[in-house]
Amino acid sequence: MDDSSIIIIGAGNLATSLGVALKQAGNVPLAVWSRTVESASLLGNRLGCFYSNDISQLPDAGIVIISVADAALPEIAAEVAGRYPHSLVLHTAGSISMEMLQSVGCSRYGVFYPMQTFSKARCVDFTTVSTFVEGCNSEVTELIRAIAAKIGSRCYDATSKQRRYLHLAAVFACNFSNAMYAMSAQILQKEGLPFEAMLPLIEETANKVHHLAPNEAQTGPAARGDKSVMDAHLAMLDGDLKSMYKYVSEYIINNKKK
Amino acid sequence: MDDSSIIIIGAGNLATSLGVALKQAGNVPLAVWSRTVESASLLGNRLGCFYSNDISQLPDAGIVIISVADAALPEIAAEVAGRYPHSLVLHTAGSISMEMLQSVGCSRYGVFYPMQTFSKARCVDFTTVSTFVEGCNSEVTELIRAIAAKIGSRCYDATSKQRRYLHLAAVFACNFSNAMYAMSAQILQKEGLPFEAMLPLIEETANKVHHLAPNEAQTGPAARGDKSVMDAHLAMLDGDLKSMYKYVSEYIINNKKK
Repeated sequence: MDDSSIIIIGAGNLATSLGVALKQAGNVPLAVWSRTVESASLLGNRLGCFYSNDISQLPDAGIVIISVADAALPEIAAEVAGRYPHSLVLHTAGSISMEMLQSVGCSRYGVFYPMQTFSKARCVDFTTVSTFVEGCNSEVTELIRAIAAKIGSRCYDATSKQRRYLHLAAVFACNFSNAMYAMSAQILQKEGLPFEAMLPLIEETANKVHHLAPNEAQTGPAARGDKSVMDAHLAMLDGDLKSMYKYVSEYIINNKKK
Repeated sequence: MDDSSIIIIGAGNLATSLGVALKQAGNVPLAVWSRTVESASLLGNRLGCFYSNDISQLPDAGIVIISVADAALPEIAAEVAGRYPHSLVLHTAGSISMEMLQSVGCSRYGVFYPMQTFSKARCVDFTTVSTFVEGCNSEVTELIRAIAAKIGSRCYDATSKQRRYLHLAAVFACNFSNAMYAMSAQILQKEGLPFEAMLPLIEETANKVHHLAPNEAQTGPAARGDKSVMDAHLAMLDGDLKSMYKYVSEYIINNKKK
């Protein structure tokens, strides 16, 4: 099989964005697999390709990309290794080492980790994504880079250890900053105020760190040491959000740029 | 004095951005005041206007905008009320009520609260800013709206109570999300990895909430309930960041969109 024949194992947020990007690049995946027929058909129909919930039913392919929850990955990778002993098998997980794929029986393997936040409802433009790649040998690394190039993604080499830290840092920069947006929305909703009012602020906060390091860009009551505002804010909060306000403010105060 | 003659009391982040925006709009402030001559001269020279650290030395003006730390605001506002008994006096603080200005002796007063993150090193484009205004009467509210219009800011009416909650919500959406970027940068720096790698992710995270509510946009190990990744991440952290990882993940789990 040639290396443009790709099968996607998984039909979650990342698998969906990746499948759509490959299709848009003129390299429609041959087939998709998901644990349930429902989600397999959803993505299969979107891509116009074969789908199944049974790995043994999938067609041959040059490259198999596994994009499933980390906990399910080793078991599914073992099954893929059995079905595709000669194909290049890739996973997309930030926190799982490349060697896991070898340990479950893959002979040609690597990692394709696009560091981005993926949702099915919003397809990501890969030209804005940094993808971190690792191959079991240099020929494989080149093949993985070619996939990134095909969908227009910026591509960087990263070891399994570096990738683990990139993923951890991404949880803070992305998942946790989004959680702060959610807390903000919760406060506004209670007062009948629209979250839309926050969007220019969120945009400027994100833009600012293109030009200033985050601890230089830090503003607000904690950064100013404005205790009267912090006390007033704490008095307006309770439960989870009150604790969160305390902890994050303490972090800001303790890590203030000298 | 006519209502285009403006004096700025304060030379901090917001005062600087506002002064520059007024200058760019062709309405150079008449004068600026700051507690120290050094910071007064820095902004005065930037705007090409009179500056002083003595309020009694300032020229007459139609409008006086006070933009100082919340803790200093009542005392300085009282001094301004004494020097400018007939001028319109505005403050720019999210958390301070409009009535404070009346209580220190202002006769015509209001609030001009541009909800944005301001840094001296990066002047804000006010056309991207939502400004919340409140006036002691409708004629004053119109005058405040005219200032917002002059610098191209979107303008909304907000009561003092609404403004307090907007400010609190802004601390979460802006100051705290920036703190999450800082934690991310701290993790990367320890591993010798560049923070720049996070920028596309930060941008997409900020863009996403233009289209999805934050709790719908939430992704990552906590949103997926991926305990194995969360445990691995906790094992990689210690101190402040370990506690933060726990608390924010718990929030995400407890507030998951059903």
